[in-house]
Amino acid sequence: METMKGIIQRYQHKRISLVEAGVTRHRSIFNGLKALAEDQPNCRLSKPEVVIIHDAVRPFVEEDVLLKVVTAAQEHGASGAIRPLVSTVISPSADSCLDHSLERARYRASEMPQAFLFDVIYDAYQQCSDYDLEFGTECLHLALKYSHIKAKLVEGSPDLWKVTYKRDLYAAESIIKERISQKVCVVMDTKEDEEHVGHCLEEMLKTELNHVKVTSGQDLQQIILEQCYNFVCVNVMTSDFEETQRLLNMLEESNLSILYPVVVISVHFLDYESVPLGQKMEKSPVSIYVTVPDWKNGLVEEEEPLQPSA
Amino acid sequence: METMKGIIQRYQHKRISLVEAGVTRHRSIFNGLKALAEDQPNCRLSKPEVVIIHDAVRPFVEEDVLLKVVTAAQEHGASGAIRPLVSTVISPSADSCLDHSLERARYRASEMPQAFLFDVIYDAYQQCSDYDLEFGTECLHLALKYSHIKAKLVEGSPDLWKVTYKRDLYAAESIIKERISQKVCVVMDTKEDEEHVGHCLEEMLKTELNHVKVTSGQDLQQIILEQCYNFVCVNVMTSDFEETQRLLNMLEESNLSILYPVVVISVHFLDYESVPLGQKMEKSPVSIYVTVPDWKNGLVEEEEPLQPSA
Repeated sequence: METMKGIIQRYQHKRISLVEAGVTRHRSIFNGLKALAEDQPNCRLSKPEVVIIHDAVRPFVEEDVLLKVVTAAQEHGASGAIRPLVSTVISPSADSCLDHSLERARYRASEMPQAFLFDVIYDAYQQCSDYDLEFGTECLHLALKYSHIKAKLVEGSPDLWKVTYKRDLYAAESIIKERISQKVCVVMDTKEDEEHVGHCLEEMLKTELNHVKVTSGQDLQQIILEQCYNFVCVNVMTSDFEETQRLLNMLEESNLSILYPVVVISVHFLDYESVPLGQKMEKSPVSIYVTVPDWKNGLVEEEEPLQPSA
Repeated sequence: METMKGIIQRYQHKRISLVEAGVTRHRSIFNGLKALAEDQPNCRLSKPEVVIIHDAVRPFVEEDVLLKVVTAAQEHGASGAIRPLVSTVISPSADSCLDHSLERARYRASEMPQAFLFDVIYDAYQQCSDYDLEFGTECLHLALKYSHIKAKLVEGSPDLWKVTYKRDLYAAESIIKERISQKVCVVMDTKEDEEHVGHCLEEMLKTELNHVKVTSGQDLQQIILEQCYNFVCVNVMTSDFEETQRLLNMLEESNLSILYPVVVISVHFLDYESVPLGQKMEKSPVSIYVTVPDWKNGLVEEEEPLQPSA
């Protein structure tokens, strides 16, 4: 509970209520539903029309699938994400021999998220037997058994898988690193030319990367919090690298490089005074320094040199 | 076929016969069985008592589970590895709604390897319908349906999973890198003191690592082929680093560092002539150089400094 409170505070989430877990999956979900239904004083949310149930062990859920299950739940009363089966499912006999196998194409793996009209799933949980609460694993089954609702099944993405084994941690880590490597922030030391230089860099970088942001540096703390760990610091006006140094200090204090690759590229226009900026972007060589704080703890992937003149 | 021939030649495998795949899983397996049964001139193997069927997409199969399925097949006629289900399995209706869900604890995922008495599985395949060969996915099912053999089910390890999605490639890569990081080879420039220095280093390293090998360098090519990419080169007799340079050349030629972290630690005893070797191992400071060829392309993980005197 303390860890979760810390996370909520750190990211300044306003609409989250914590509810203590039960000893089984279904008891935990039931506790959450009760908190919503009973309008408890500690609960910041009130009873909703639709409730989404999700597993924390599926951290890569996209807004798109949430929208799909909610829409389907509004129409059908219940909905859940499914995936094709990767392995054939078999039923063993008591002596660990094959009893029968299921035709793989006729079955699906039931994943999360699932969405329900609140009353449908709450009524189902209220009718649950102790056996259901102890040994059950499937909310869609409870909605069918007790509320007689046939859930609409929605195709989910492969990234919805359940982080279960050690290898899944490796996979999750690589997915996070891949996403982080697709984000870059261009930090300008000037507002005047931001539009020109920033725009050029933004256009170039956007051909390669998913998320490119240009800033003059006021919101760096927020940008780091949003998991952007790649920076191009452009020093046009001054050569004191003050802004770059401030960023490096922030990154070092955050200790991020223990867990993630952190890349800072410092670009300095040497002869700002003598030549108009537009010409420089097209013709002049620029000096590029790559500074990777504490690279030994991070993962340094191959870097293409930045070629503004190409 | 050419790629496979190249791999067989490179690793000098003697007991492998290649058979062309069919258009479906079952047709490919049937082709393999036919090649064994018919004692074809190109086939270097003859009809065995037990045959193991495995998927190339499950590259982390251990000898232990192979032994288990073979032993069980000898006794029961058929055997296969299984794993617990991670997600609940459901059956959808024609309109993509939930028809029913299976009780997760009563079912298992059927994995590979599987082993069969040769005649059991070959007879089954010979009786297969075209429908089986086109749409079937489960060899244990064929053994049950056509040879009336109830396969013995054996618990497999989590590493037997099927490399299916992009995230599985990440996981597989990390497992390979983890295994490689557990292998180290100590290269001595002398045979005389090999027993002493080599033994000391071996004992020290074995407390941390799974596979430690000591060599005086004749078999480096073979050691690299066996996926050992971590080396400690001990220069006792000479200071010309000839052996170390030869290793670095081999590693650079192999281009390994594009795919894997390659670490070479060169240890040089500076005052070999003046002090007996045993004393030096316990007392003297040693100079340690870490050379990582082309580290930008590899993954450099945090290195604990080697402390022979600790």
